[in-house]
Amino acid sequence: MAKTAPVRPLSGFPELLPELRFVEQQVVDTLRATFELHGFAGIETRAVEPLDQLLRKGDTSKEVYLLRRLHEESADGHAGLGLHFDLTVPFARYVLENAGKLEFPFRRYQIQKAWRGERPQEGRFREFTQADIDVVGRDTLPFHHDVEVTRVMVDALTRLDFLPGFRLQVNNRKLIQGFYAGLGIDDVDEVMRLVDKLDKLPAEKVRAGLLDEVGLDDKTADQVLELATIRASDESFVDDVRRLGVEHDLLDEGLAELAELVSSCADLVSDRVRVIADLSIARGLDYYTGTVFETRLDGYESLGSICSGGRYDALASDGRTTYPGVGISLGVSRVVVPLLARTGLTASRSVPSAVLVAVVDEESRTTSNAVASALRARGIPCEVAAAAQKFGKQIRTAERRGIPYVWFPGVDDDGATSHQVKDIRSGHQVAADPATWQPPQEDLRPQIITPANEEQNQ
Amino acid sequence: MAKTAPVRPLSGFPELLPELRFVEQQVVDTLRATFELHGFAGIETRAVEPLDQLLRKGDTSKEVYLLRRLHEESADGHAGLGLHFDLTVPFARYVLENAGKLEFPFRRYQIQKAWRGERPQEGRFREFTQADIDVVGRDTLPFHHDVEVTRVMVDALTRLDFLPGFRLQVNNRKLIQGFYAGLGIDDVDEVMRLVDKLDKLPAEKVRAGLLDEVGLDDKTADQVLELATIRASDESFVDDVRRLGVEHDLLDEGLAELAELVSSCADLVSDRVRVIADLSIARGLDYYTGTVFETRLDGYESLGSICSGGRYDALASDGRTTYPGVGISLGVSRVVVPLLARTGLTASRSVPSAVLVAVVDEESRTTSNAVASALRARGIPCEVAAAAQKFGKQIRTAERRGIPYVWFPGVDDDGATSHQVKDIRSGHQVAADPATWQPPQEDLRPQIITPANEEQNQ
Repeated sequence: MAKTAPVRPLSGFPELLPELRFVEQQVVDTLRATFELHGFAGIETRAVEPLDQLLRKGDTSKEVYLLRRLHEESADGHAGLGLHFDLTVPFARYVLENAGKLEFPFRRYQIQKAWRGERPQEGRFREFTQADIDVVGRDTLPFHHDVEVTRVMVDALTRLDFLPGFRLQVNNRKLIQGFYAGLGIDDVDEVMRLVDKLDKLPAEKVRAGLLDEVGLDDKTADQVLELATIRASDESFVDDVRRLGVEHDLLDEGLAELAELVSSCADLVSDRVRVIADLSIARGLDYYTGTVFETRLDGYESLGSICSGGRYDALASDGRTTYPGVGISLGVSRVVVPLLARTGLTASRSVPSAVLVAVVDEESRTTSNAVASALRARGIPCEVAAAAQKFGKQIRTAERRGIPYVWFPGVDDDGATSHQVKDIRSGHQVAADPATWQPPQEDLRPQIITPANEEQNQ
Repeated sequence: MAKTAPVRPLSGFPELLPELRFVEQQVVDTLRATFELHGFAGIETRAVEPLDQLLRKGDTSKEVYLLRRLHEESADGHAGLGLHFDLTVPFARYVLENAGKLEFPFRRYQIQKAWRGERPQEGRFREFTQADIDVVGRDTLPFHHDVEVTRVMVDALTRLDFLPGFRLQVNNRKLIQGFYAGLGIDDVDEVMRLVDKLDKLPAEKVRAGLLDEVGLDDKTADQVLELATIRASDESFVDDVRRLGVEHDLLDEGLAELAELVSSCADLVSDRVRVIADLSIARGLDYYTGTVFETRLDGYESLGSICSGGRYDALASDGRTTYPGVGISLGVSRVVVPLLARTGLTASRSVPSAVLVAVVDEESRTTSNAVASALRARGIPCEVAAAAQKFGKQIRTAERRGIPYVWFPGVDDDGATSHQVKDIRSGHQVAADPATWQPPQEDLRPQIITPANEEQNQ
């Protein structure tokens, strides 16, 4: 290939060095293993959707990337296709397209890239990886699945043990809508939209909006704001809401669901994990109909919610059948990229190899290759030195890559083989047989390390 | 979400049902595990590249998908970005961009989607997954890495034991170029382009082109065609070439390299695997400078080469330093999608769950959840029945999903628990403890099955 033009990173399209990609891959592997333990099947959908599907959410339409072929006449986009901006829209379409071949309730996970043309900032990218789980039913979907997806995602986040602590904030749309209806409010959506701004605007500003824009009276506006201040890590929030004296069937339903969700997750709470009923959470998206989730990472509040979702009672419909669902989406890039940048988290080595097999001279490279084959046959990743340099140089090559062991293949004067393997961290060297030698389990794969425990190890 | 528009598959954008996606995922997992055993580090590059990078290969420029934002003024593509159509161009850019932070020789694997706007046909898609391995050096890269990447890819394909047999066809550009130069041919590239058509056109037509278009004389044209007929599964091709009486230093070099490659792979040959020196193989891409590979799958010859690559001595250059490399790219979608369609290959179940935990009644759902948690804590994937239907119905739910075991949580009259687990394939039911029961290893994950051995199992 000819000389290339000067290269530079593209803002909003993060790429990782091998040792950092290893950390991201570990995150994805852990998520996948957890989702599969809970019976979720993995699917992938194509990266593109017809524009009419993508533009149904008004808010994000300006962020959609359209596709066009180079020599196409029209500039309107190739057959009206664009890149998906989340995994929910494609999943809804996949369910409708394959409804006759799927078993319901259908549990699926999906870990894929998505694209949004928004302005890049910390944790917000133009290309990013999402990890979604959803349970979708046909016609009906019992509430216990709301509890299920919550527990699965908490399990997954808990297994990512290098993450800081986090809090899952849960609420219920029925609770809010019932409360507003009980207050006699007509424009429930507009009130919800204003209340959702409480994390960005002072309460006084939101209150002014409720009075001036929606036309609520003082007492009603106060009760709306009062509801949004309620937070509890147990079911005590029910009494707090009751004390506000509002009554409505939908409110009762929402209170019961949220209380069940919080109490069903009580056993998951730990030093690192909190589950909090937070009645200010509404989620911007208008398709949620019951449970809503957001998740904040301790010390990373500026990232916003890293893991969000909820119950949608009409994810998709073909006109005769509807497919209600509940799901949560974790922003893998949103968490991993800032975490790597801020903490210095990395892998213990930049290659998968646990062993560098040294080469005595080019004539005996096949001997070194045979050692490597014997190790690989027993699942030990290794590489053979690229050049038959002095052993000191070959050891330094291993050191620079973080490979813990160097293998020296040798032949005694009497023709017998005399292999040696050296742990280059300790300098400890022993005789070894490629057919039986085994490194400690923790040396088989790279380990995730923080700069702090890297120092410890040195 | 509101009612969706009618949905239909998009030609050229394959999507798989969960049980077929499982097969594809197994392929990817096997490739990744093999590449890592050989010390290759996994990276991912962004899906987009600047157009000037993508358009350097003239042939494929018309297949590039350009990106555009919805409300963008210009129709020229968003900041001149397009989707990558292979993983080689992005990798070359990644190496240049990160050269100061990488250790050379740099071994990397990359398993990602790529996009080409070509006309869809069997094995040719507009969105497809590629699995690439490359070894890249700084300034120099010894020939033994050509042998290495060949052996790694043969190892990977061999581990995909549900694939039919395959033959790796290898050649060497130096051999061809040296032979042509020895014959006194000036326009080596044009001759190579014509000879490369031998698999599509009759030899007479190619001969006519050599005479009329390039202006070769009869004897030279005959020798060019003679060289392209040479095939051997061992080093005997060297004598066959020598017999043609052409001499050139570059020819000698190419013969020596190709002979070394074939002899170094002799131990990999088996019933399923052949490695053949095939002197008609040239590869269309002009950046190959030495070894070239193609791979044909027995019975799937119409797919063309499923796995191709070669040596490129100037993958990338920043003007001062060049980065020679050697690599092979496997078309994962090209192999998997036709294989699934033609053979009926599938997974033994559509969900990861090895166990469906039955629910006696909604009041005791927490008991069933506790059983599931105990099983998952020991790595056994399971799901809890969605509804407390009659046990017969719950068993049929498991059957439809292919889940092998149903767990019945129970409480005796005296209050002691009395769990039972049933293998619903045999009907065999035993008492079991969720803290200790273990299914056979082969039931833990779905198995890949062909319709033939599915019948056997029934």
